[in-house]
Amino acid sequence: MSRLIRFGVSLEKGLLEKFDYLLKKKNYTSRSESFRDLIRQELVKKEWQEGKEIAGAVILIYDHHKRELVNKMMNIQHNFSEIIISTQHIHLDHNNCLEIIAIRGSPNQAEKLSDHLRSVKKVKHVALTMSSTGKHIE
Amino acid sequence: MSRLIRFGVSLEKGLLEKFDYLLKKKNYTSRSESFRDLIRQELVKKEWQEGKEIAGAVILIYDHHKRELVNKMMNIQHNFSEIIISTQHIHLDHNNCLEIIAIRGSPNQAEKLSDHLRSVKKVKHVALTMSSTGKHIE
Amino acid sequence: MSRLIRFGVSLEKGLLEKFDYLLKKKNYTSRSESFRDLIRQELVKKEWQEGKEIAGAVILIYDHHKRELVNKMMNIQHNFSEIIISTQHIHLDHNNCLEIIAIRGSPNQAEKLSDHLRSVKKVKHVALTMSSTGKHIE
Amino acid sequence: MSRLIRFGVSLEKGLLEKFDYLLKKKNYTSRSESFRDLIRQELVKKEWQEGKEIAGAVILIYDHHKRELVNKMMNIQHNFSEIIISTQHIHLDHNNCLEIIAIRGSPNQAEKLSDHLRSVKKVKHVALTMSSTGKHIE
Repeated sequence: MSRLIRFGVSLEKGLLEKFDYLLKKKNYTSRSESFRDLIRQELVKKEWQEGKEIAGAVILIYDHHKRELVNKMMNIQHNFSEIIISTQHIHLDHNNCLEIIAIRGSPNQAEKLSDHLRSVKKVKHVALTMSSTGKHIE
Repeated sequence: MSRLIRFGVSLEKGLLEKFDYLLKKKNYTSRSESFRDLIRQELVKKEWQEGKEIAGAVILIYDHHKRELVNKMMNIQHNFSEIIISTQHIHLDHNNCLEIIAIRGSPNQAEKLSDHLRSVKKVKHVALTMSSTGKHIE
Repeated sequence: MSRLIRFGVSLEKGLLEKFDYLLKKKNYTSRSESFRDLIRQELVKKEWQEGKEIAGAVILIYDHHKRELVNKMMNIQHNFSEIIISTQHIHLDHNNCLEIIAIRGSPNQAEKLSDHLRSVKKVKHVALTMSSTGKHIE
Repeated sequence: MSRLIRFGVSLEKGLLEKFDYLLKKKNYTSRSESFRDLIRQELVKKEWQEGKEIAGAVILIYDHHKRELVNKMMNIQHNFSEIIISTQHIHLDHNNCLEIIAIRGSPNQAEKLSDHLRSVKKVKHVALTMSSTGKHIE
């Protein structure tokens, strides 16, 4: 853990009031902790833009009764097994499945996997969440 | 599955060219399939805005060596056990953990959970991914 | 947490020596801790025999290329969605899948689920692991 | 897939009747399918005895309020990160957690991990489930 450095920030009164209101709503106890989070968020984005090794998740909703769909999904996932760590599958109701694929690897491969899954007909929703291996974030 | 309806769309040439380029890159085989995805994406957003029952995931990165952190995370999660289905935990390296919490419930509770986890000191990254129970999406 | 009670146990010398050897190999620091585990193990068995609410897991190995298999598995799991919490899916290699189904409910339903999955042709291995909700174990 | 070979088996009438009764109860449609499962079960055991690369799961029940416990578990898991693929965590109630660790590696390491976790005070239940990578099972 590195040493704390204190510095000044100038903000418009109106903007600061809105920010403080947000902090309270979001359970923050200090402005500094919130700035840390905003900076970390930017660091994660940068890791993805620079093609570094990243971690994240692909989230899917689909109806498992569409037969070919289940097999296609399985095949796509096995083709990307290099970046897939494991998949969490939840049977939401008799028709709908929530699938969360934990990934680790290149941002490029992550986006390809997400695009391939999204292009399968009858998939209801696909979201790619960008996160980090945590190595370059304090 | 509902009947297919065909209708016309007018778009600027430049915009359409950029769109077609994107489709190819994203593995789509038709413009219609892509429009379906864009519409579904809007439907998911609407479910969250209207406070309907939603599904989704909260993704976290943290260093498990920060002792109090692990206990705080565990307590927060047990306090929100109503909306948490299960959590996938991946040991990225000797320090860093990737945690993916599958959730189902009200958008409001989901955001509260995400905010509570983010406000814990030393958590490196928190992302809330909005998805759907799939019930109202075709 | 309840008060500790100390009492005597008589064992054959040979049996005790073998037991102590096992404890060392298994990383135990005291005989008492090991007896606690043996007793808890019996309590878990009893919960299953008495048909109490239990928790546990069904573990499967299969080749996802057997098409009908994947759909059959999915259908069986959705039929038992009452006792299934979530499923962890791991792509072991291009052919083989490891699936771990976390369950909670009646032992009878758990065994039925396990039997149904095992009777699907081409499933390579099914194991039902009995555990507990922890409510009745100290 | 290999060619089917048909051969005769002689069994005592009483034993066969009990076996057939079990098959019906377990949803099997033929004796052959059941024999296949029994043989596969033996093959899995053999993989573990011979120290081949195996897959499986460690299942845990514990009360997350025992503070040191959660940190100890986390440390042990990170020390065995070589054989741990991912961990599924389920908040059973306000106190009890069900944790399922998916593993892949040497049987020896798997047993060591299981023994280390079991020897942590206040862990309520630990079960090691032996399964296979599926590579050597048809």
